[in-house]
Amino acid sequence: MKALITGGARSGKSRYAQALAESLGPRRTYLATAEPLDDEMADRIRRHQADRGEGWVTIEEPLHIAPIVQHAELVLVDCLTLWITNLLMRHGEDADLRPQLDVLVAAVAAAEGHVIFVTNEVGLGIVPMNRLARRFQDWSGWTSQALAPLMDQVVMTVAGLPLRLR
Amino acid sequence: MKALITGGARSGKSRYAQALAESLGPRRTYLATAEPLDDEMADRIRRHQADRGEGWVTIEEPLHIAPIVQHAELVLVDCLTLWITNLLMRHGEDADLRPQLDVLVAAVAAAEGHVIFVTNEVGLGIVPMNRLARRFQDWSGWTSQALAPLMDQVVMTVAGLPLRLR
Amino acid sequence: MKALITGGARSGKSRYAQALAESLGPRRTYLATAEPLDDEMADRIRRHQADRGEGWVTIEEPLHIAPIVQHAELVLVDCLTLWITNLLMRHGEDADLRPQLDVLVAAVAAAEGHVIFVTNEVGLGIVPMNRLARRFQDWSGWTSQALAPLMDQVVMTVAGLPLRLR
Repeated sequence: MKALITGGARSGKSRYAQALAESLGPRRTYLATAEPLDDEMADRIRRHQADRGEGWVTIEEPLHIAPIVQHAELVLVDCLTLWITNLLMRHGEDADLRPQLDVLVAAVAAAEGHVIFVTNEVGLGIVPMNRLARRFQDWSGWTSQALAPLMDQVVMTVAGLPLRLR
Repeated sequence: MKALITGGARSGKSRYAQALAESLGPRRTYLATAEPLDDEMADRIRRHQADRGEGWVTIEEPLHIAPIVQHAELVLVDCLTLWITNLLMRHGEDADLRPQLDVLVAAVAAAEGHVIFVTNEVGLGIVPMNRLARRFQDWSGWTSQALAPLMDQVVMTVAGLPLRLR
Repeated sequence: MKALITGGARSGKSRYAQALAESLGPRRTYLATAEPLDDEMADRIRRHQADRGEGWVTIEEPLHIAPIVQHAELVLVDCLTLWITNLLMRHGEDADLRPQLDVLVAAVAAAEGHVIFVTNEVGLGIVPMNRLARRFQDWSGWTSQALAPLMDQVVMTVAGLPLRLR
């Protein structure tokens, strides 16, 4: 089972993704792409960890997620938007992330386990003035478009409720 | 009948909510949470009032909406996002609004009349730089998530059309 | 066939609209409302042109789109949000665009050919601080609401997937 769960801030996407993962198997990897750069971020990470129950192994990996995606028995990647942020921070705002995206797509195609991605829907507001924010918005959208065709389930959460796109 | 109508700016959410209210009964309370702080806001309030027809009593209440929600025969709360804004303005951007939210949830659970909430979907753009805006986005999402399980109908409007989430 | 395709940045809306147009007939007009004001915009326009295949005639018209909409055999307008931007740049941020919108609605109603509109969903983020951005958001939403009732199909794209609204 491969699934992409997208949604806005505080829309319940991580909760939905975790419940989906828990329905799929008892040994689960939580692949956290977040880096606790400041106190607010550290708070958010701690809150998310506290929300998860038993049966999870957490791996923190901001960049090289493809090998884990390919080989895990059941992995929840939370989230792709932070992965993109990390890549743009590392390689510069004008970096072409197509190679990294191609590697991820190939890993998903080769994966035999369950793979669940969480991503933030960030493209439905006013186009940002800031160039980095625009590139981030571009790559977030392109990543979702590249992964969607490989997914068994694509869901957007709104108000904690799932809206099935596929 | 309890309903939560969410949607973006100018997506037709208030119009949809008013039509729903008008289908439910002849004596309707319009609970306006807006405070006309400037001319632009005053214009928007006047336009919304002009859009409503007969059969409405308007109550302006920026903060203490729970008692009205609990006891009204038929109330349309427009909108929750302004209520959250008002609470953050009053209590500070780092205020924990969970107590107020719990009171509102309890009022909805106890209400015997029709209750319709309008809220703005504000979490689907780039995460704002501004801390107050991020807290506002958080509380908006958490409020929708807290109310949705109590609703008979949850709808997101896009281009004036309703998308049924529940 | 009249269709309105809305969606966020990089959600696949133009691709969906082009595939729809290609399914409708061999002689197609691409009505580009973009003006290549800077290099980044010129890049985006070139990329979109390269994405289109044979069978398209491109017309660049930033403002007076109604006559083309009314008389074309098959026209794809990409996109309405840039048309609104162009109108606000020309007439000022407080301009009342209702007359131009009425002319467009009348053109759509009179059109005997296929008309497909692409628009950006820009109202689902934090309300912008900037007054021009708010007016842009208002007119974008009002335009979608005015056109939707005339459409055979209204679709929102997310992650490259269509979500049917009508």
